Amino acid sequence: QFAEGPLLDGLYWEESYNNHTTLTSQNSNSSHIYYENLLLGVAQIRQLKVHNNSCSIYPYFQDLLEDCYSEYRYQVEDRSEFGLKSDSEWQYTLGSSLSPWYWGSMGFYSSGGYRFTLPKSKQESLEKLEFLRENNWLTRGTRIVFIDFSTYNANVNLFCIVRLVVEFPATGGAHTSSHTYSVKLLRYVKNYDYFLASCEITFCLFIIVFIIQEVIKIRKLKKNYFKNAWNYLDLLLLVVSILAIAFNIYRTIAVSTLMEGLLSDPHTYPDFYFLAFWQVLYNNMIAVNVFFAWIKLFKFVSFNKTMIQLSSTLSRCAKDILGFAIMFFIIFFAYAQLGYLVFGLQVEEFSSFQNCIFTQFRIVLGDFNFEAIEAADRILGPIYFITFVFFVFFILLNMFLAIINDTYSEVKADFQMMTTEELQLRDLIKQ
Amino acid sequence: QFAEGPLLDGLYWEESYNNHTTLTSQNSNSSHIYYENLLLGVAQIRQLKVHNNSCSIYPYFQDLLEDCYSEYRYQVEDRSEFGLKSDSEWQYTLGSSLSPWYWGSMGFYSSGGYRFTLPKSKQESLEKLEFLRENNWLTRGTRIVFIDFSTYNANVNLFCIVRLVVEFPATGGAHTSSHTYSVKLLRYVKNYDYFLASCEITFCLFIIVFIIQEVIKIRKLKKNYFKNAWNYLDLLLLVVSILAIAFNIYRTIAVSTLMEGLLSDPHTYPDFYFLAFWQVLYNNMIAVNVFFAWIKLFKFVSFNKTMIQLSSTLSRCAKDILGFAIMFFIIFFAYAQLGYLVFGLQVEEFSSFQNCIFTQFRIVLGDFNFEAIEAADRILGPIYFITFVFFVFFILLNMFLAIINDTYSEVKADFQMMTTEELQLRDLIKQ
Amino acid sequence: QFAEGPLLDGLYWEESYNNHTTLTSQNSNSSHIYYENLLLGVAQIRQLKVHNNSCSIYPYFQDLLEDCYSEYRYQVEDRSEFGLKSDSEWQYTLGSSLSPWYWGSMGFYSSGGYRFTLPKSKQESLEKLEFLRENNWLTRGTRIVFIDFSTYNANVNLFCIVRLVVEFPATGGAHTSSHTYSVKLLRYVKNYDYFLASCEITFCLFIIVFIIQEVIKIRKLKKNYFKNAWNYLDLLLLVVSILAIAFNIYRTIAVSTLMEGLLSDPHTYPDFYFLAFWQVLYNNMIAVNVFFAWIKLFKFVSFNKTMIQLSSTLSRCAKDILGFAIMFFIIFFAYAQLGYLVFGLQVEEFSSFQNCIFTQFRIVLGDFNFEAIEAADRILGPIYFITFVFFVFFILLNMFLAIINDTYSEVKADFQMMTTEELQLRDLIKQ
Amino acid sequence: QFAEGPLLDGLYWEESYNNHTTLTSQNSNSSHIYYENLLLGVAQIRQLKVHNNSCSIYPYFQDLLEDCYSEYRYQVEDRSEFGLKSDSEWQYTLGSSLSPWYWGSMGFYSSGGYRFTLPKSKQESLEKLEFLRENNWLTRGTRIVFIDFSTYNANVNLFCIVRLVVEFPATGGAHTSSHTYSVKLLRYVKNYDYFLASCEITFCLFIIVFIIQEVIKIRKLKKNYFKNAWNYLDLLLLVVSILAIAFNIYRTIAVSTLMEGLLSDPHTYPDFYFLAFWQVLYNNMIAVNVFFAWIKLFKFVSFNKTMIQLSSTLSRCAKDILGFAIMFFIIFFAYAQLGYLVFGLQVEEFSSFQNCIFTQFRIVLGDFNFEAIEAADRILGPIYFITFVFFVFFILLNMFLAIINDTYSEVKADFQMMTTEELQLRDLIKQ
Repeated sequence: QFAEGPLLDGLYWEESYNNHTTLTSQNSNSSHIYYENLLLGVAQIRQLKVHNNSCSIYPYFQDLLEDCYSEYRYQVEDRSEFGLKSDSEWQYTLGSSLSPWYWGSMGFYSSGGYRFTLPKSKQESLEKLEFLRENNWLTRGTRIVFIDFSTYNANVNLFCIVRLVVEFPATGGAHTSSHTYSVKLLRYVKNYDYFLASCEITFCLFIIVFIIQEVIKIRKLKKNYFKNAWNYLDLLLLVVSILAIAFNIYRTIAVSTLMEGLLSDPHTYPDFYFLAFWQVLYNNMIAVNVFFAWIKLFKFVSFNKTMIQLSSTLSRCAKDILGFAIMFFIIFFAYAQLGYLVFGLQVEEFSSFQNCIFTQFRIVLGDFNFEAIEAADRILGPIYFITFVFFVFFILLNMFLAIINDTYSEVKADFQMMTTEELQLRDLIKQ
Repeated sequence: QFAEGPLLDGLYWEESYNNHTTLTSQNSNSSHIYYENLLLGVAQIRQLKVHNNSCSIYPYFQDLLEDCYSEYRYQVEDRSEFGLKSDSEWQYTLGSSLSPWYWGSMGFYSSGGYRFTLPKSKQESLEKLEFLRENNWLTRGTRIVFIDFSTYNANVNLFCIVRLVVEFPATGGAHTSSHTYSVKLLRYVKNYDYFLASCEITFCLFIIVFIIQEVIKIRKLKKNYFKNAWNYLDLLLLVVSILAIAFNIYRTIAVSTLMEGLLSDPHTYPDFYFLAFWQVLYNNMIAVNVFFAWIKLFKFVSFNKTMIQLSSTLSRCAKDILGFAIMFFIIFFAYAQLGYLVFGLQVEEFSSFQNCIFTQFRIVLGDFNFEAIEAADRILGPIYFITFVFFVFFILLNMFLAIINDTYSEVKADFQMMTTEELQLRDLIKQ
Repeated sequence: QFAEGPLLDGLYWEESYNNHTTLTSQNSNSSHIYYENLLLGVAQIRQLKVHNNSCSIYPYFQDLLEDCYSEYRYQVEDRSEFGLKSDSEWQYTLGSSLSPWYWGSMGFYSSGGYRFTLPKSKQESLEKLEFLRENNWLTRGTRIVFIDFSTYNANVNLFCIVRLVVEFPATGGAHTSSHTYSVKLLRYVKNYDYFLASCEITFCLFIIVFIIQEVIKIRKLKKNYFKNAWNYLDLLLLVVSILAIAFNIYRTIAVSTLMEGLLSDPHTYPDFYFLAFWQVLYNNMIAVNVFFAWIKLFKFVSFNKTMIQLSSTLSRCAKDILGFAIMFFIIFFAYAQLGYLVFGLQVEEFSSFQNCIFTQFRIVLGDFNFEAIEAADRILGPIYFITFVFFVFFILLNMFLAIINDTYSEVKADFQMMTTEELQLRDLIKQ
Repeated sequence: QFAEGPLLDGLYWEESYNNHTTLTSQNSNSSHIYYENLLLGVAQIRQLKVHNNSCSIYPYFQDLLEDCYSEYRYQVEDRSEFGLKSDSEWQYTLGSSLSPWYWGSMGFYSSGGYRFTLPKSKQESLEKLEFLRENNWLTRGTRIVFIDFSTYNANVNLFCIVRLVVEFPATGGAHTSSHTYSVKLLRYVKNYDYFLASCEITFCLFIIVFIIQEVIKIRKLKKNYFKNAWNYLDLLLLVVSILAIAFNIYRTIAVSTLMEGLLSDPHTYPDFYFLAFWQVLYNNMIAVNVFFAWIKLFKFVSFNKTMIQLSSTLSRCAKDILGFAIMFFIIFFAYAQLGYLVFGLQVEEFSSFQNCIFTQFRIVLGDFNFEAIEAADRILGPIYFITFVFFVFFILLNMFLAIINDTYSEVKADFQMMTTEELQLRDLIKQ
């Protein structure tokens, strides 16, 4: 009933990882890795399982196969006690509501699971793992195992949050991956940081002034305010900025709480992963915000005739470009669909519809793997490739150019006419 | 007379493969691979040979060389009994008429051959292979050896059909390759599958309605029906859809027959390869069908002025594009011919005329191996490359653009004239 | 207090290198490497350290961590004596004012440091290194170790100056790199060199004549001289040429001084690295000079109507191109900023703002790593990529083309008008 | 005086190669390699040396270095007897006047040298090599060693001529390379070959007819004949065809002579390399011939209005394209010069001026190594790259397009005018 093998396989990875980390970390009591990094608290190991009968077996095989464990889905998660049933590693614990789900290469995993922390000393850790292996902690239903720990480097004042993941797909085997987040959770250490802090305060003041301005503007313009795309951009920038400020304050509080907890009891696992995740999200938010702030520069760029001419070209051809983009993407999606159905099973780059789209963009740019396409299908592969390049690269892409080119000529002619008319006007005035 | 070496070489591969599979599969009686996959039946090994004197030796060498085994061709296949002549592995068996020929990297191999199945237990398999090696089953005339087996994964309800191939080219050595097909041969297991089944039934009803519509249309329009390209597309979609439905029914029957045979006697080799091959063909058929269905969308895309303008640009410049494509491909083929004759022997990518064409398309897109071209011919290589890039990329490709650009300007001018005429007409009407 | 490990790690590299070089070089007294290259003098080893408390530790960690060594900056360099304090390797020596700082991958290192030279014999070198290791020469504060030596190959008359670098980043670990400069420091050996020497003398004469010409021109034109861009180019070429001549003379003197010092005492370290550095700078200077000399050719290229037409197209569209380049780079930088903030921590190619710009240029050309972008952020990655390609590659790049195309048409029309006017003029004159 | 090391290094390679070949070839008397290939005759080993004092040592080093062996040049080749002076391996033999020189990666080597053949048996070969090593056959002056042998595969009727080369550059070390030519020297074996033979005879007849035609044409047109580019193409095709036929006849004779010599005495080295070299040259000649034959198709392509319009566009813009190509290549060469001088020493792809040109073409197409450029020079590298892409890819390349686009519009307008004029003419005629 219980497969010894995958457990051993799984533990092999775990052990090798743990051996590595514990080996370097147990030299002294303060657990340094690489001699410069401090291991914060202890490592946590967590697994997720699926039900015994989470999928149905076809009648033909029902006497050959007894159990069937499907791929991980939240609905088929196994949350019952198992094994010794005594400790937290044998009992399902729900994840906190705020901690993020994990998006692995084979599914979207919940934040709960059977979890335990490794002891501080290396010997005890090995014994614990040995004990778990003997009691079959990893079962055939195990779909994912997480190993989380965090380090802190005082030299550069950065936290390093590490998550090692072993996924066990339903097809057998094991798939490992690792995630490392280097985040600056503690701030305001150096003088330079205090300079940054003052900048941040100034930014907050600016934002307040900006909010007041926008409120006044909305009151004045009322409905007309929402007719201009630039105003939407302003609002977006405002909202994201406020969110960022709020997160910043929350982060500072959360880190200090965690650190105090850790200092009082170094044998617990501090959930920095959760903070790192939100920090990354926050960074992305900021990034998008800054991107739109750059775009806002366009509002102020039309300062002379040439600039007006260029930006009016772009805005005038937008409608045609959009119309053609629809036609272009019909053919593009037709090819993507073809690529997905023909090469999807064999070629990594065509393994999903989105990947097909990305791959086709890359073909247009010249970064692709023709050999894989040819190996997947020796007849349709080259036909797909050649016709795609011919129609999309040789012909359709040129339509974008033709549209822009024609619009530019038109706009330029209009501007020259305008200027000559202006000149005639001036002549008239002079007369 | 008999070369011991290549036999050993060949068996080396076979044994390593078999060791691997049998090692994992003989743990329990139900033969699991990777602990999650069920080995279906047993593996089959098949070889194809050529005649002793399938090629002629030049007079100079006739006293040095006794035998001559040419490359595999169907005409020179050796079908006589050999060795012990006792069992199926020493006697030629014809392949069934439906089973596909194999398109290897060195030829197109028939579906017959000297075949035998491996026993269920690992020890017996090794003994069998040992016995064959001692009796020189692989001869100098052997050109290809196939090892076929199938597995089934109940967790994800997929069959995995594996074919390992060892080709022995006439030049000596051995060339190995492997083919894996993951196909869903058993359907209607989960609830979701029943939903799909109902979709399929709906699709069949649609197709019937569509057939009736088209028949009526043909009756009404008669010869005019065949003058419109869109109608050809409709017919194509119809025919392929009907074929797909027919195959689907056939597949369901074939799988259940095979499975029942396998369940009654697990020591036979079930020919899933044959089914997998047709399944892949069927998938490609469906893929092409869906592609043309996407293209059909174009028929409905011309809903406003911009769209009509764009699609009429494309259709109007089609003639010029075609004319120029002929000129373009004359130069393109001239370069392909040059590349084939100069680099064909040295560079993999120029080893056939088709490959030259693909390679040149890839050069245009920017994915190529200049070092190989230069290494193959230090003088002609760079000349070929530079002139090709200059003439084709710098000059000829731009002609496509010039044609599209010019046509677009024309079409736009026509449309603006039309609209102004329409305006004048409206004015006239108003008057 | 003292970490034994990193020292050993560091010395591991050093020893392996030294073993290699000393192994090959100690066969005979004259120290040949590769049997053809002469080791000049002895190797020098130099390290740079940072202060014990060069960074501040956050209050939470102050009882866990005692020391904190920040990244290398000139301000926090540790220059105090340490260890045995007896010899030059334990005492800080300032670098000579002319010797260049080293630009490593983690900082900009000063030219001073704790330095010592290895003895001539292999055994003594090993003992020296052993002795240093036992006395903890490499401390936790060590940030970089340089190993410098030079060889001379008489067959091809080239010096090879080698610098091996081991950087110890503040995050722990070690990062090694090597720099090799092959420079021709001794000249005028072969007959061909004498021919070159005569060319150089001729060049000097030309430069003198050219200076006189330009001085006359400046006197004549006065302020108008500085209104023409070509004149700036001329001045630049002149200044760089004079600098090159001056460096050439200095180099010859410096090499002969160094060589004489070396010949009198072969147990010192000759600082050829310093010379090699300036030689490389000199080469770059020459390269830029020659580049501008090529550009100057443009001044003389407008010899017939076609040429004038083409060059006037380029100069006329320069203003529009520049205007559009500003708009283009606003969007380009917005994307670069986005890429930097989102992928900066994960993807090497986005690790700094400049790298983002280079990477985006490479995406436009078709050389990039989509997998890395996708792995860094599974949602923003593809969005960034697709929108970037669509807006920048499909649309904005075409604007450059549209501008050039339109200007060319205009210029051509103007020229045809001009020529017809000229013809009419001629007709008038004839009449 | 004599360096033992490089000799051993050199022999190491030789021995490993010979071990390999002799190991496989000495199983039976008829020396098969890979069980299917026949070794023809024996292998030949040949070396080239340079003079002791082929370069001058700088005064500083004259007491440290005694000898100086420059790079290989024909002028400094050492042709004196050396070592035992007894046998052909110690005496210089001139190469036959027809045998080609070898173009290695470090020079252009003459066809003479100190040569000897290996005995047939493996043991004797090893003894011979041992004997040579003990007597220092490879000296410090040795610059290149060739190992030549040929095999024949009866299955596919192909000769395989192998040349292994060990170059000893003047800088020390060794550089190995190998060249394999698969050529079909024996023809007319299979029936298909006889079909080819009849085709060849038909081709000869055609050529004769074609010659007569051209002679008549020349007589008729006299000087006007040489004014048409197509006629030059015709003449070129004729001359190359005649050369090809002549070589074909010569080859057949040479092979049969060689084969007969080999069959009478199998212990000699048959110089197939010489034949293979000419065969490759002949193939290239044919390839160029066929390329121009494709181009000739253009003469007949102008069969309808569209085609005439397109080909007249190409021919009309040729002058402008040429003019602009000059301007383009000035900037292109300026960049190539810059790249050569700045990156030439560090980056393989910029190691010569030609390579710079190829590399820049590849940058335009999107196949390049930005990391190498950046590593070579951290400041000039990115500047070079960004400005190159901006000016050449963004701006200059578009000029080609603008020229073609404009010319196409013009030609199309002319043609429409022509057709309307024709229509008016027809109307006039009707009237």
